[in-house]
Parts: sequence; structure tokens; C-alpha cells
Amino acid sequence: MNPKFARRMIRFQESDLTPILRLAANPEVISFAGGLPAPELFPVEAMKKIAVRVLDEHGKRALQYSSTEGHLPLREKIAARTNRNLKTSLKAENIVVTTGSQQSLDILAKMYIDDGDCILCESPTYLGALSAFNACQPSYREVDTDGEGMVIADLEKALAEEKRAKLIYVIPDFQNPSGKTWSLERRKAFMETVSKHDILVVEDNPYGELRFEGTTPPSLKSMDTKGQVVVLGTFSKIFCPGLRVAWVCGEPAFLESFCNLKQAADLHTSTLSQYEIDAFLSEHDIEDHVRTLVSVYRERRDIMIRTMDEAFPSEVTFTRPEGGLFTWAEMPEKVSGRDLFMKALEKKVAFVPGGAFYPNGGHENTMRLNYSNMPPEKIVEGIRRLGEALREAL
Amino acid sequence: MNPKFARRMIRFQESDLTPILRLAANPEVISFAGGLPAPELFPVEAMKKIAVRVLDEHGKRALQYSSTEGHLPLREKIAARTNRNLKTSLKAENIVVTTGSQQSLDILAKMYIDDGDCILCESPTYLGALSAFNACQPSYREVDTDGEGMVIADLEKALAEEKRAKLIYVIPDFQNPSGKTWSLERRKAFMETVSKHDILVVEDNPYGELRFEGTTPPSLKSMDTKGQVVVLGTFSKIFCPGLRVAWVCGEPAFLESFCNLKQAADLHTSTLSQYEIDAFLSEHDIEDHVRTLVSVYRERRDIMIRTMDEAFPSEVTFTRPEGGLFTWAEMPEKVSGRDLFMKALEKKVAFVPGGAFYPNGGHENTMRLNYSNMPPEKIVEGIRRLGEALREAL
Repeated sequence: MNPKFARRMIRFQESDLTPILRLAANPEVISFAGGLPAPELFPVEAMKKIAVRVLDEHGKRALQYSSTEGHLPLREKIAARTNRNLKTSLKAENIVVTTGSQQSLDILAKMYIDDGDCILCESPTYLGALSAFNACQPSYREVDTDGEGMVIADLEKALAEEKRAKLIYVIPDFQNPSGKTWSLERRKAFMETVSKHDILVVEDNPYGELRFEGTTPPSLKSMDTKGQVVVLGTFSKIFCPGLRVAWVCGEPAFLESFCNLKQAADLHTSTLSQYEIDAFLSEHDIEDHVRTLVSVYRERRDIMIRTMDEAFPSEVTFTRPEGGLFTWAEMPEKVSGRDLFMKALEKKVAFVPGGAFYPNGGHENTMRLNYSNMPPEKIVEGIRRLGEALREAL
Repeated sequence: MNPKFARRMIRFQESDLTPILRLAANPEVISFAGGLPAPELFPVEAMKKIAVRVLDEHGKRALQYSSTEGHLPLREKIAARTNRNLKTSLKAENIVVTTGSQQSLDILAKMYIDDGDCILCESPTYLGALSAFNACQPSYREVDTDGEGMVIADLEKALAEEKRAKLIYVIPDFQNPSGKTWSLERRKAFMETVSKHDILVVEDNPYGELRFEGTTPPSLKSMDTKGQVVVLGTFSKIFCPGLRVAWVCGEPAFLESFCNLKQAADLHTSTLSQYEIDAFLSEHDIEDHVRTLVSVYRERRDIMIRTMDEAFPSEVTFTRPEGGLFTWAEMPEKVSGRDLFMKALEKKVAFVPGGAFYPNGGHENTMRLNYSNMPPEKIVEGIRRLGEALREAL
């Protein structure tokens, strides 16, 4: 006796990825599928002290409703950190706290996308972003992407052809899923190209601080002379994802409209989580915590890549990321990532089949591998098993 | 250089209520405007102990990503409490944890509403629900509502006329804004009427447990023989709103689609908040806490109503709610709630002008008054000042 779903729901019923990824949650499985941080590095003891202090000092406020834009001292600290990391000059008024970056993606689509408007993205791109955007029924134009970032000639072609292009979604640092980072040259050329168009650039940067080697190129936002770039950042990868605290950086006028939609979506982000993270930033050196993460994840990347070199058939190629959480493998065309997933699961190892990262389909001969969530010995064992599955598939 | 907003944004720019309500946030103002619980009743000391215990026992899990549907032990406890309170027979599989009930409203609109589909609601209705629904651009049909609930003849007329009706949004217990509760007879007649139509009933019940006197009529959900009713419940009013934890009850197939949209909107609700509330429910008697709230809010309601009887001009009528957080006043037609708001603000007292609770406009001669958030002496003083403002306006 229920009514028909809205049209957008077609996009939320097609995915066959959710059920197979559920199989990867079996604790016997060595899973490279998620994008989870290493829980053994969570600052649990520090959080216990902070939880007590926040409730002692701010209990009535920290448990009450609060403003949609977020806790002001936290927004000030986020602005200061962002300025150091991304070479920007933001103030608290340029920051709104969100319930994970996932919420920003949901709200950005609501702000700009009418049914049939076009979103440009890297090829491949983050599948969670596609889920969020899908609620507003966009079309997608995948822009060719090489080792340095979006290919400018293809970007120009896309911008010329897509009359309803509204938004470009990019992850220039340690991209999800490819692990690649855009070069400085390409960032400059990208900003030069997009500045000629009325289009919003969403620079998603959850992993930028997790750099294992080399130097960080300037952010797109630092080259933004027209208020065209919004940056998404998050505490999920550098602190704890379970608190669901992230942020969006943009111009105050943009953020005012953004907040109207955020208020309609969940009123505000957990007050207690915001007070706790603010207290952690005041009382602890989060840069020191990030250095620990970098050191552990660097070792895990090294072990995964070294084992892939040894255990994977030579026809399989993969990226060697300088940071972040993921590497990305391409297999010969005849190998389907989804079929390989089922074979690998028999050997109790899991990954994300890569086809899902292409909004317009194809490229099934790919897979994303996460190295942050498994200890070294399981990485070695899991990659060896995956190598066996690959050899059987070839 | 940014692109045009999506069409839906027109609905997020018209409101003139946000700026005036910001004026009410001045701490010198006696505010009856919000719907805030009394922060002095938050169980701060209990939460300190619980925060430490949760991190001791479940630190790595409580700070990590978690499932979209929510923490299973919490869902089990919510199902058991709901069954006691609403005379339902739900299991954990009928419960999904949400980031406040506001998120459920956002997701329900996404699930069912295409641009131009119709939502039926009480007249007046909760303005925050209208904000959430507006993202999907519905039309609204206000159904005449009297002291017993929706007027069935008008509901039947609306259902016959609105060919694109998809969803009926109602708050049968201590309604926001009116404070009214539907009678048992009217609930039965309502369910009999809607059961003949392919329409979803959203029974929003944030206040039902806050009953000061009399007996609770059975929920609509308890009379639902066709899986047509979804119920929204929340810890915001009976525990702490700052944690942003609420829930939706429905059939498992419905919740599967709901979860696909929730995952796209914020992945999941704060893991730590869920563990903490689960621990509170295990280790403390929340029913005892609710009894304390009821006792304090009853006293505040009594004081507000008594002072209104004394201080308001006789031309102003108002409801005498048996529970919840609000009373609702109607003034002679020549008095505008918005004009009165500005006058009252000069006397440092605030409320919400009532016109905003009518999606199709009109009824500006109304106002919503909250009694849960102010101590008795401020209620007396604020209502006296408001009485003066009313006499000046008449």
C-alpha cells in the first residue's frame, strides 16, 4: 500500500556492490576492500580524558542543540590548519563543519544539480561521491585522467560539449581509487582552464596530510582567484571516522546557502563530537599523531607494493602511491574484477572491484586495494592469496 | 564564476525567519522560540562515566566507521522501548538509527518525492519538516486540523483531489507547533481512510513520552495492518539532542532502500554517540530520567499557561497541551506574529511567529511558545512582557 518511489531511486537499486562487500566483512577475510583507518592507532586514552574534561567544562552546551555552521573555536582551528596545509588564507567564516565529507557531497549536489545537469569527474573517481550525487540525478562526464591528473585537452573538450556542466569533482591528492597525485603543472593548467567557465570545482582532500615522501603540491584552492573552488576536509582519516566530523571551505555567501541545506538535512553535526575534537586539537599535537599514521601507513604501503611485485602476474599493473590509503591495479581486459572478487573470497581475501568507480561503466578489469587497515603480516598473506587468484584467472 | 543554483534553492532563500530567530539567541532575551530541552537536566555525570567505559571496552570500534543501519544492541533496545510505548511489535530489523529525525525527513522526501508530488500535512505543521521536504520540491496540501487531529472529511477530499499525493506527514502526540494530541476515535478514522490509498504515513513522535497527565492513545503504527506507517523517534527530547541520534521504524524492505539513501547522505550516524546511548540504556533507568523531565516540564507548562491566563488579553486564545514542549496562540487577525515578534524583542522576549508553520502561507496571527527551556521565574517574566506587547498591538 505504499506509493511508488521517486525516480531517483532507480539509481539506488542497481548496485550489486553492497551485497558482495558485505561478504568482505567476515572477520576471517583479509580485507583490502574498505577505506578504514587503522583502529589500533586511535588515541583512545587521550579521548577518555578529553571526554571527561569536555563534559566537566561544557556539559550543558556539549549535549545541547548547536548552530548549523559548527562550533566556532573548532572552525577557527580548522581554518588555521587548512591555511598551513593548503597554502590558503581562510578564516572561521570560510568553514562549515559537516557530518562527514559525505554530507558535503550530498549538499553540493542539492545546491547545484537539477535532474540532468552534468558533473565532470576524474576517470575513475570515488564511488561514494557518485552515490551522494545520484540523489539529484546528474549525468556524468568522465574526463581522461593520467598519472598527472585530468588531461587538459579532454577537460576542454568536455567543458565545450557539456552545456549543462555545473560542477567538477576532483581528488588531486592520493586520489580515491587510483592513489595518484596531480602534478603542479597540471594543477596550474586545470585552474587556468576552469577559470574561463561558470563551474564549481569541488576539491576533495581527505588524504593530503598522509604523505609518505616527496613534497605536497599547492592545492587548487590556493590558486583560486575567483572563489570557484570549495575544499572538503575531514577528521576521518587523520583522527577518528566514528565521530563523523568533517568540514567544507568556501566563500561566506556560498556557505550561507550551504548551511540552509545542512540545517534541513540534519540541523547540525554532533555538538559533543565537535567539542571533543576541539579539545583534542587544543591539548594534543595532532601533527604528531599524523606523523605516527604516516609512518605506519608508509610501512604498510611498502609491504603491499613489494608483495604485489613478487606475487602478482606481470600482466597486472598497479600504482605506487606517495601517500593516502589505496593502490589501484589494472588487469588484462579479459579478467573481470567482480569475478575475481568471488574467487578471491574463496581464498578469504577481499578488495573493491574497480568498475564501480566509473560512473558510465566499463573498466571492469580493475580493482582498488587498501593498505591502511591490515597489519603487515596479513597484507603479505592476503596479497599472496590474491596473486594466486589472479594466476588462476589468467 | 559559479554556476546557477539548482531550482530547489529558491525554497531555501525565501525564508525571513532565520535572521529574526538569530536575534532571539541574545542571552539577554527570554526566549520561548526554540524547541530546546532543559540543559540543566542533561545527565552530565552519568555521561562522563559512560564515555570512559565505552572507550575502555569498545574504543577501537566506537571510534571507527560503522554500519549504516546502526549499532545492533542499540537497535534492539529501541525496538523494545518502542513496543512498550507505542504498542507495536517491532524487532531490531525494523529500526534504523539516523542523525536526528531531521535526517529521516530528508531521506523520506528523497525516497518518495519527485518535483511536484504532493505531501499532505496538518495545518499548521512542523516547519523543520517543510525545510527537509523542500529539497525535493513537493507541493503541500494542508488538511484541516481541529482539537482531535486531522478532519477526516477534509482528508478524504484532499486524497480524492491530489492525484500526486505520496506522503502524509503527521505528529499525533503533542504536535509541533500546536501542542495538540489526536483522539483515539480520530486515529482510527484516519487509519481507516488512509488504508484505502497508496500513500505513506509518516508518524513523527518526538514528544510522545513527555506526557504530563491523561493516558496515551495507541500510535497510528499500532493500527497499521498494511506496513503503511513509518514512525520517527528520537533521543533529542528524552535524552540529549547534541548527540544527534534518532531512529526510524518501518518494514525491512522499506528500510533497505532508506539505508541506501542514508549511506549516500552521511555513511552512518556517529558510532561513539550510538555506543554511549546504548551504554546509558544498559546502565541507567532512562524511564526514571523521563519521569524527571515530565515533572519539570509539567511545572513549566503550568506556570506558562497560568501566566498567559493572567497576562494575555482575552482576545488571544491558546492551547493547553497535556505534554510535549509547546503551546500555540491565536491572536485577532489584525495582529501579525512577525510584527509582534519585533515589538516583543524590544522587551527582550522571543517566540516563533506562527505563519512559518503553514506551508501555503497565511495565519500570520499566530505564535508558538516553548516552555521547556526557561526556568519558572523567566517564564513568568517573559509571558508578562509578551502580554504587554500584545496589549500594545491590539
